[in-house]
Amino acid sequence: MSKKKHPYRLYLTEEQMPKQYYNLRADMKELPEPMLNPVTKNKATLEDLLPVFCEELARQELDDKTRYVDIPKEIQEMYRIYRPSPLIRAFNLEKYLQTPAKIYYKFEGNNTSGSHKLNSAIAQVYYAKQEGIKHLTTETGAGQWGTALAEACSYFNIPLSVYMVKASYEQKPFRKDIMRTFGANVIASPSNTTKVGKEILKNHPNTTEAVEKAVTTPDSKYVLGSVLNQVLLHQSIIGLECEKAFEILDEYPDIIIGCAGGGSNLGGLMAPFMRDKIKGKHNPRIIAVEPASCPTLTRGKYTYDYCDTGKMTPLAKMYTLGCDFIPAPNHAGGLRYHGMSPIISKLYHDKYLEAVSTKQTDVFDAAILFAQKETIFPAPESSHAIKVAIDEALKCKETGEEKTILFGLTGTGYFDMTAYSSYLDKTMTNYIPTDEELEKSFPNIIED
Amino acid sequence: MSKKKHPYRLYLTEEQMPKQYYNLRADMKELPEPMLNPVTKNKATLEDLLPVFCEELARQELDDKTRYVDIPKEIQEMYRIYRPSPLIRAFNLEKYLQTPAKIYYKFEGNNTSGSHKLNSAIAQVYYAKQEGIKHLTTETGAGQWGTALAEACSYFNIPLSVYMVKASYEQKPFRKDIMRTFGANVIASPSNTTKVGKEILKNHPNTTEAVEKAVTTPDSKYVLGSVLNQVLLHQSIIGLECEKAFEILDEYPDIIIGCAGGGSNLGGLMAPFMRDKIKGKHNPRIIAVEPASCPTLTRGKYTYDYCDTGKMTPLAKMYTLGCDFIPAPNHAGGLRYHGMSPIISKLYHDKYLEAVSTKQTDVFDAAILFAQKETIFPAPESSHAIKVAIDEALKCKETGEEKTILFGLTGTGYFDMTAYSSYLDKTMTNYIPTDEELEKSFPNIIED
Repeated sequence: MSKKKHPYRLYLTEEQMPKQYYNLRADMKELPEPMLNPVTKNKATLEDLLPVFCEELARQELDDKTRYVDIPKEIQEMYRIYRPSPLIRAFNLEKYLQTPAKIYYKFEGNNTSGSHKLNSAIAQVYYAKQEGIKHLTTETGAGQWGTALAEACSYFNIPLSVYMVKASYEQKPFRKDIMRTFGANVIASPSNTTKVGKEILKNHPNTTEAVEKAVTTPDSKYVLGSVLNQVLLHQSIIGLECEKAFEILDEYPDIIIGCAGGGSNLGGLMAPFMRDKIKGKHNPRIIAVEPASCPTLTRGKYTYDYCDTGKMTPLAKMYTLGCDFIPAPNHAGGLRYHGMSPIISKLYHDKYLEAVSTKQTDVFDAAILFAQKETIFPAPESSHAIKVAIDEALKCKETGEEKTILFGLTGTGYFDMTAYSSYLDKTMTNYIPTDEELEKSFPNIIED
Repeated sequence: MSKKKHPYRLYLTEEQMPKQYYNLRADMKELPEPMLNPVTKNKATLEDLLPVFCEELARQELDDKTRYVDIPKEIQEMYRIYRPSPLIRAFNLEKYLQTPAKIYYKFEGNNTSGSHKLNSAIAQVYYAKQEGIKHLTTETGAGQWGTALAEACSYFNIPLSVYMVKASYEQKPFRKDIMRTFGANVIASPSNTTKVGKEILKNHPNTTEAVEKAVTTPDSKYVLGSVLNQVLLHQSIIGLECEKAFEILDEYPDIIIGCAGGGSNLGGLMAPFMRDKIKGKHNPRIIAVEPASCPTLTRGKYTYDYCDTGKMTPLAKMYTLGCDFIPAPNHAGGLRYHGMSPIISKLYHDKYLEAVSTKQTDVFDAAILFAQKETIFPAPESSHAIKVAIDEALKCKETGEEKTILFGLTGTGYFDMTAYSSYLDKTMTNYIPTDEELEKSFPNIIED
């Protein structure tokens, strides 16, 4: 055990900040399966990706060899406005739980977008700007990604169209207005403005069409806040900062916990620790936490599937519930994506990481306790990780083990008050899909 | 000019954190007039204050001699969860404005209550707990104070009743639910549950009755988040942290700007700088910014008035619009209190500080610009200071002066989305009361 004094919040100095992203694929013993062209079913090439993504990002998507990627000065400059994010020791939560475990969390909510999504938004907008892109499109569910992207687009001065899941658009008018604050054009999706939109509108009332808009508009590209390899690359800054902070503390986490929707947060948080695990240098447990209502890793299939509902992006091999899967309407917050990052999927398949799913009301129990003890109001997404961190700390209480637990506190819950209100009013319900329900949305695209 | 490198965000180390509050009254050349017993009109004694406040806080209220007050260990312990707050250099805003001025802001929104109010809430709840108080009551307008107090009460495990201005209670259900998250009992006020409530209900639909509840319930005390001397004492931690940070930067602010409702933020922020000014060591300009719709300093009268609408607290000599004053319904956010801290009032009267008032839509112009450039979503209250900081920076642009500007960014605006939405939808209006309207609410309690 380290003898160093633990501060409540550890901030790296500007000199200590990472200057490069870390590409975990370069150290994986077995790589994720390649993406496939959705029409030919052949291995996707750079050319296949260019209609959707800008060139540098397409390159990052495919590059599984370059271990470290320099973070351009302009991106570092914008990171400096809100980074480093603090690594916080949850002394008060520990005391309340009476656990011998040390609980640390990396808090990514210290910016207007309120989540870690800004880390990749800035990178994606910067590269697009560099390549002369004049317009960006994206889709957003709970709204964290859309907000982050609006913020980055405002900073780099690029117009943005956000297709927002219709249910969220209607239930979260404030989320829409935050995006408008940053100058974004927010459209409830599916809309009647695209072919995909009209098609989807017929079959599903809750999905999006940003890809078509990008593909059919000149100098326009599509950006996505999770799942993609490029996103995990950018989000590695979370893990790299944590690694440095633990170095300063002269400690190493025994358990690393991240909520997982598409995998952007967990993939970034775990990156350097997973590297150590792959190399046999350390052996931390790494745990993905997902909602029981959208159980991609724990109950999904490991197979090729579309990344988007519109079926226009390349196919990726991943754990998926099927690109037609939509969580039950009582599901609050994000973590609603049907698939999981191919990198995380492969590592889970190869047993480098564990996955658990949690019920919504248990998640909010944990969220409220955390808010009361730690003075941060957590996003429902982040609270999945809180719930499992508490569970692990309580196990340590039973066994007396002084484990070091690290979890990712991805963001704040100020735009999720409707969910909090329903929890407080005891009208919140849980929904766990039956096997039959899941079977209906499983895809059958490529035989595994 | 200093040669030191400016970080974006400067955080003090735990060792550098203040261990004592600073009592500005001990250094004032002329003291504020004493509080008066509202019945006898004699100088208020400790005994006069005890029915309302707990003993240590009543003592702090009256003590104008003790220069430094030790911050109890338990309070320091809770401060450590969310403090130090960062001193941030607004590099991006500076660049956008093309000003030679350096703009710094002290950001106090890094906690669930979303504002600086937590600094005094923690102290007040701690002292009450020490004295065996079993229940606290308070009133809240925009809800920042109620949220902060709920958070502190949850931490120290004391039940709390919050009387929330009825208009806010109805327009801000999420604010109410954040307080419920921390276990507070929130009552729309005026209610039908107290004598004062029934009385007020007859005459005014928008005022509160927490004092009566405290006075008539055993082991119960009233706490207030602004105006009082004790609150400014606790909030001095803001200014003390700034002082230390500027020492580290080897700089000194030329202009210090704070929004002012009751004065809690400005009083705390300016404390050590005002001391230097009084002592002739430095001569910074210190500016209070208030809403044109509630122009206490700029258009109020310097006279004795009640601190509460229920007329149960001692009389204080202060700038006031009359304890019956209520801002027009289109007034968004806080800064709606009828009076101003007696300390700030006296210093303003003696010309140690300046005051300006700003129109609501100008405030939101500044807020949106700030959010876009600095990635923090400011509270409407804080945005009053942003507006004037921008004005001063633009004056520097004209004159070429490299002034150092410091302003208080008191909190975040996540619970003010209705106001932001009305601004974005261009339905927000301004209201500046006429002299005749102000005259109606001016009090006539004690001849000046």
